[in-house]
Amino acid sequence: MTEAKKEAAPATAERRQPRGGKPIGLGLLGAGVVGGGVLDLLAKNARYLGERVGVPLEVRRVAVRDTEKARAAGCDRALLTTDRDAVVDDPNVEIVVELMGGEEPARTLLARALGQGKGVVTANKLLLAKHGPELIALAHQNRADLAFEAAVGGGIPIIRSLREAFASDWIEEARAIINGTCNYVLTKMREERCSLDDAVRDAQERGYAEAEPSLDIDGHDAAHKLVVMSMLAFGTDVSDTSLHVEGIRAIAEADHRFAERFGYVIKHLAIGRDRGSAVELRVHPTLVPVSHVLANVSGVQNAVALKGRAVGPCLLSGRGAGAEPTAVSVVADLVDVARSIIAGASGLSTRGIAVSRRPLLPMAEVVSRYYLRVTVLDQPGVMAALATALGEENVSIEQLIQEGLPDGESRPVDVVIITHRAREGSVMAAIERVPERFLVGKVRVIRIEEP
Amino acid sequence: MTEAKKEAAPATAERRQPRGGKPIGLGLLGAGVVGGGVLDLLAKNARYLGERVGVPLEVRRVAVRDTEKARAAGCDRALLTTDRDAVVDDPNVEIVVELMGGEEPARTLLARALGQGKGVVTANKLLLAKHGPELIALAHQNRADLAFEAAVGGGIPIIRSLREAFASDWIEEARAIINGTCNYVLTKMREERCSLDDAVRDAQERGYAEAEPSLDIDGHDAAHKLVVMSMLAFGTDVSDTSLHVEGIRAIAEADHRFAERFGYVIKHLAIGRDRGSAVELRVHPTLVPVSHVLANVSGVQNAVALKGRAVGPCLLSGRGAGAEPTAVSVVADLVDVARSIIAGASGLSTRGIAVSRRPLLPMAEVVSRYYLRVTVLDQPGVMAALATALGEENVSIEQLIQEGLPDGESRPVDVVIITHRAREGSVMAAIERVPERFLVGKVRVIRIEEP
Repeated sequence: MTEAKKEAAPATAERRQPRGGKPIGLGLLGAGVVGGGVLDLLAKNARYLGERVGVPLEVRRVAVRDTEKARAAGCDRALLTTDRDAVVDDPNVEIVVELMGGEEPARTLLARALGQGKGVVTANKLLLAKHGPELIALAHQNRADLAFEAAVGGGIPIIRSLREAFASDWIEEARAIINGTCNYVLTKMREERCSLDDAVRDAQERGYAEAEPSLDIDGHDAAHKLVVMSMLAFGTDVSDTSLHVEGIRAIAEADHRFAERFGYVIKHLAIGRDRGSAVELRVHPTLVPVSHVLANVSGVQNAVALKGRAVGPCLLSGRGAGAEPTAVSVVADLVDVARSIIAGASGLSTRGIAVSRRPLLPMAEVVSRYYLRVTVLDQPGVMAALATALGEENVSIEQLIQEGLPDGESRPVDVVIITHRAREGSVMAAIERVPERFLVGKVRVIRIEEP
Repeated sequence: MTEAKKEAAPATAERRQPRGGKPIGLGLLGAGVVGGGVLDLLAKNARYLGERVGVPLEVRRVAVRDTEKARAAGCDRALLTTDRDAVVDDPNVEIVVELMGGEEPARTLLARALGQGKGVVTANKLLLAKHGPELIALAHQNRADLAFEAAVGGGIPIIRSLREAFASDWIEEARAIINGTCNYVLTKMREERCSLDDAVRDAQERGYAEAEPSLDIDGHDAAHKLVVMSMLAFGTDVSDTSLHVEGIRAIAEADHRFAERFGYVIKHLAIGRDRGSAVELRVHPTLVPVSHVLANVSGVQNAVALKGRAVGPCLLSGRGAGAEPTAVSVVADLVDVARSIIAGASGLSTRGIAVSRRPLLPMAEVVSRYYLRVTVLDQPGVMAALATALGEENVSIEQLIQEGLPDGESRPVDVVIITHRAREGSVMAAIERVPERFLVGKVRVIRIEEP
C-alpha cells in the first residue's frame, strides 16, 4: 500500500498544482481602513499564509480614489491605480477583494469579476443584501467563489458557521446584536442615564458612529446584515422585499428606566425566524430579560444567538467592526478562495447556498409580548379607556405601572403596560382604539423577546 | 469572455468530477449515541447534503461491537459488521468516521485509513490529544484529510474557527468551559448550595455524568480538549507532555460561599496562553468575576473565550455534548472532506496545521491572583503566621476574611485570603512556610482569572 502510494503521489501533486508554485494574484478595490488592515495582515503573515495556501498570495493591484492619500497610508505606489476596471480585468488578478462598499459600482465590478471566473471576497453587506442571490447565481454559473465573512459581524465567524458548521442542521432562529453603534448608544444611555443625543455624540467622538449616523442609528445596516444572514440560515432570498426596520431614535431615557424596573434591558436586535412557509425578519429595539445572554453584550460588541434544531442554542460574539477583526475575516476568505483555485475546485463553496424566495411574515402576524409606554393626561377615565381598548382586541395585560404624581400636580404621566403574548395586528388596533383626547404624543411600542 | 467561458466549462467540469456522480462511500467505526445521530442526519438531509457535496454521501459499512444491539437501534442490518478492519480496508469506503473513542484500536485503524489516503473524521479527543500531531503528519504525507470538529465542544464550531476563520490572526489566549459535567456540577452546587456528591449524583441521574465520572470530574476530558485546541490555536505539540490538571473534587460548598462574597463564581476552566518561547496550559477550578462572560455559562453549556491579536476577544458557546450537536459537527466535517475528494484536493486542509514542540510553562512560573482558604485553629498568632509566611515570599494580600465564631466557641475556622498577582512558586512556598501546628487539613488554592 505504501509503495503504491509513493508512486501515485507525484501524479496527484501535478494534478493539484498545474501552476507550479506560481503566486495567486490579488486585486483590491478600496484601500481604506479595512483595506489597510488587509494589506497589513497579508504582509505580516505572508510566509504562513503561503504555507496554508500552497503558493504565495501576491497583491498585484489596488484601486483607490486618491493615489496620494493611499500612498501616505503605506500602500506601495507601484500597485496603485484609480482605474477599478483595470484591477478587475487584469489577467494577473485572480481574486478581487472589494472593500469600497455601496451598491454601485461595486455590483457591476464584482459581476464582471465573477463573469470572468475570478474569485471574489467582499465585505459589502449592502450589496449582498440587495444583490446577494444574483451574485451567488453568477458565481455558480461561472464556477467562481464568492466569500463574504467580513460582511456580517466583523471578526465573528458567523458566515462560515452558517455555511459550513451548521450546514446539516436546520436553523430555526437567529437573534443578533449586529450594529455596534446602536449597541454602544443604548449601553451608554442605560449605564449613564444620558440622552440619546449625548450618547450618539459620545459615540461619534470615539469613532463608533459616523458624522451622519443614520445608516446605523436607523437600523439599515443591521437590516442588511440580517438579510445576508438569513440567506444562509434560512435559504431565503428577500433581496427585493422591504422588511420591518426600526432604529433607536425614538428610545427615551424613560424607556431604559421602565425596562429596568420590569427586569429588562433594551437592545437593538435583528431577528430572523424560520416560520415554515414564511420567514419572519425584523429589526427593532427590543426588551430582553436581564438574564438573557444577549443582555450582557455591551458597548460595540456584536453577538449572534442561533437556535438550531439539532445543535440547540449557540452564541457567537466578538468585535463586530474595526479594521483588524474585519481584516482577519477578509484574509480567512482569501485563503479559502485561493486554496480552491489551487485545487482547481473554484465555485464549490457557492454550491451549498440554495436560495429561494419565501414570503416575509407580515408584521401584523408577528406574535410577541409588548411593552407599551403611553403618555396620558392624568384624568378620570384614562385607565378604563386603555384597558377597554386592549380588551376589545383581546390583548391581555400582564403588568401595568402608572407613574405617580405628587398630590395636586397635574401634568402628563407615563403609563407602562406589559402585555401577554399577542398578535402585533391586535396590539396596533388596540392602540388605535384609545381616544385621542387622553393621549399626549405617540404610544411607544417595544417588542419583548423571550429567553 | 462569456463565449470562452462557455467552451471552457465542460472541460472544467470533467476535471472536477472524474467520478461522474458516483457517491462518496462512508464507513463508520462505532454506532453508539453520536453514531446514531450521524446516521440520522445523513438520512434526513440526504438530498441537501448531496447537493452541497455534488454527489450523494452513502454509508457503506458500520462496525459495531454487537450487531444485534445496533440493529435494534435502527441501523441497516446489511451494513453492520463487527470487523473494524474490514470497514477501513473496504475499497468502497472513502471516508472513515471514527466514533468509538479511546486510544486503541482507534489509533491503529485511523493510521491505516490515512495511510491508504482515505479521509478521516473523528470525535476522539483522547486520541487527538495523545497522537494528534502524528496523525496530522500521516494525513499530510498521504494527502488525506483529517477533520475533528466534533472532538471539542460538541456543536460549537471552535475547531473550524481556529483552523480557518482566525488562521491569519495570532491567538494569544483561549479560556474555555469545555466539560459540561464539571460545569453542571459547579453550577448546581452554587445555585442550590448542595454538596459535590449530591450534585454529581444529580448529574448522573440526568445523564450528564457517567457512572464512573472521573474522566470528567478529574479534569482529564477537559485536558484532552485543551491539548487539541492548543494544537490549532498555538501550533503546539504537547502530545507527550503532562500538563497541570486539577478536577473539581476538592471544591467545597464553603468555596462557593466565599467566592460569592468576593464577587466571583467558581468555574472549571481549561486555559491556554501563548507565552512566546513557552506555552501556558492548565486545567483547574478557577475564580471568575461574576461580570465575566464565562461566569454566565451555566449547566452543561460549553464556551470558549478566545483573544486574538487582531480579532480581539471572541466568544463561542453552545451545547458541548450530546448526540445531536456532536452529529452536526461530524456531518459538517464529512461534507468538507467529501468535497475535497470530489475536487481532487484531499489533504489541503491539514496543510495549514503546523505543529511544533514548545515547552510548557512550568506551573511555578504561572502568575495569577490566588484565593487561599486556610482552615486554622483559632488561636493567638495564627494571623501573624499567615501574614508572615506570605510576606516572606513577597506575596501580598489584597483581601482577607476570617470567619467569625460566637464568643466562647472554639473550633477550626476558615480564613480566606485573596492575593495580588504573584508567581505560583512563591504562593506554594509561602504555604509551606505556615507552621503546621496552626493548620487543619490542606490549604485550598484556587487561581483567579482576570477579565
